[in-house]
Amino acid sequence: MRRTIFYVSDGTGITAETIGHSVLTQFDSVEFDTYRIPFVDGEDKARAATVRIRTAYAQSGARPIVVNTIMDQKLSDIVAESGALMLDVFAPFIGPLEAELGTMRSPRVGKAHGLTDFTEYEARINATNYALSHDDGIDVNYGDADVILVGVSRVGKTPTCLYMALHYGVRAANYPLTEEDLERLELPRRLLPYRSRLYGLTIEPQRLAQVRQARRPGSRYAELKQCRWELGQADKLFRRDAIPVQNTTHTSIEEIASKILAELGIEKHMF
Amino acid sequence: MRRTIFYVSDGTGITAETIGHSVLTQFDSVEFDTYRIPFVDGEDKARAATVRIRTAYAQSGARPIVVNTIMDQKLSDIVAESGALMLDVFAPFIGPLEAELGTMRSPRVGKAHGLTDFTEYEARINATNYALSHDDGIDVNYGDADVILVGVSRVGKTPTCLYMALHYGVRAANYPLTEEDLERLELPRRLLPYRSRLYGLTIEPQRLAQVRQARRPGSRYAELKQCRWELGQADKLFRRDAIPVQNTTHTSIEEIASKILAELGIEKHMF
Repeated sequence: MRRTIFYVSDGTGITAETIGHSVLTQFDSVEFDTYRIPFVDGEDKARAATVRIRTAYAQSGARPIVVNTIMDQKLSDIVAESGALMLDVFAPFIGPLEAELGTMRSPRVGKAHGLTDFTEYEARINATNYALSHDDGIDVNYGDADVILVGVSRVGKTPTCLYMALHYGVRAANYPLTEEDLERLELPRRLLPYRSRLYGLTIEPQRLAQVRQARRPGSRYAELKQCRWELGQADKLFRRDAIPVQNTTHTSIEEIASKILAELGIEKHMF
Repeated sequence: MRRTIFYVSDGTGITAETIGHSVLTQFDSVEFDTYRIPFVDGEDKARAATVRIRTAYAQSGARPIVVNTIMDQKLSDIVAESGALMLDVFAPFIGPLEAELGTMRSPRVGKAHGLTDFTEYEARINATNYALSHDDGIDVNYGDADVILVGVSRVGKTPTCLYMALHYGVRAANYPLTEEDLERLELPRRLLPYRSRLYGLTIEPQRLAQVRQARRPGSRYAELKQCRWELGQADKLFRRDAIPVQNTTHTSIEEIASKILAELGIEKHMF
């Protein structure tokens, strides 16, 4: 069974896609073809979306499903004329919230999705630049890091740092353990003042070897034996210094990042 | 008026936070204190969350609001005992979808939020590494780029590339326009074969000067006059070569990225 999903939004469509994906994964006997229709912020665009959805309906014969985050009810009504099953993300919340808060909502198109202020934008850009310039462990001052990821090469430090920076505005540095650190079983002295902000990443040796093979085929660096040794030493080091550690093998970047923030008690938010 | 919001989830809490934020921005007369309670995937954790929420209730006197993305109804019921206003994100969708698809959902905790397969994880990591290694315009092969961002220094190319890579697995390169390009009003020859994948970024001169001042105070590079000249030349170049262009001054990274993908017709998805 196949069904077509449209994520329709007056903004980027990220909210619609996030929630739609979460719900659709609960129906794993169905295959979904998914399409984004973002920036539906006027009647002309709503009508264009309606035509597109109705065409998909005619072509497949199966009723499309719309995950809808348009705030303006008038525009949602136009999209509903497509005959699709409408799943309104915000509508069920508005009534209960208005009752609870004792105030009416003040609808503003786009406000929910983007158009943020400079301060927040700048915090994220600055955090991203910070992650980029605190990525190699060389000549780095860790004093103003919110978190310092520690681990062997290719364990996932850089993408995780960038994600935390871009999403949460967290200043995330990383320190790649060197062969010397691993042999001595000691962290470099300049990390010690920041022990409470250190967080270790590890991974299954087979997986690490696979990732490294893709990068430097046939190298000692990519040998399973080498990977196993490095990870074993790193784990000893994390245990001895009581550094919290997370295995990234079966985990998405979002989940790794979210767990780190939860464990270190960093309450920065996406917005 | 202040109210406390808890984003409660059996996964990362990103879905709860995304949708909660969207709805709460509609109530701008209220101040919200927001907290994440992620990874509530067992009864003990649900009870711990309940205690925390109930404590907040007792301290503030105002009923807390829970934006809930726990899939397991039994765990949600435990959290509801806190007395908070429960806003269930998924619950309103499940019934209509089961009816529409003619099948029951197959609930799996965590499935909706993280724990993705290697292929998708790898696509995003590879795209991130691609963005990192195609960032400076020097000695870069643009052949396998999905999109190439073009613009003057500090216009937002790097964060946008990284966001597209991390979120959508899109291979995004960037080309920083040099003073020579701007004087000659010509793109470098090696970009020309990929004209359909070029996308320009621009920004208001005052804003650019401000960003550059923070980076290199007092430099010619940061002077308003210099910024104005560079942006003017870049805009001429974009117009002449019919390169689509977006002004990033008042736009969030999500929105910039989403618009680029929509305009270039790139249908990659987050999941």
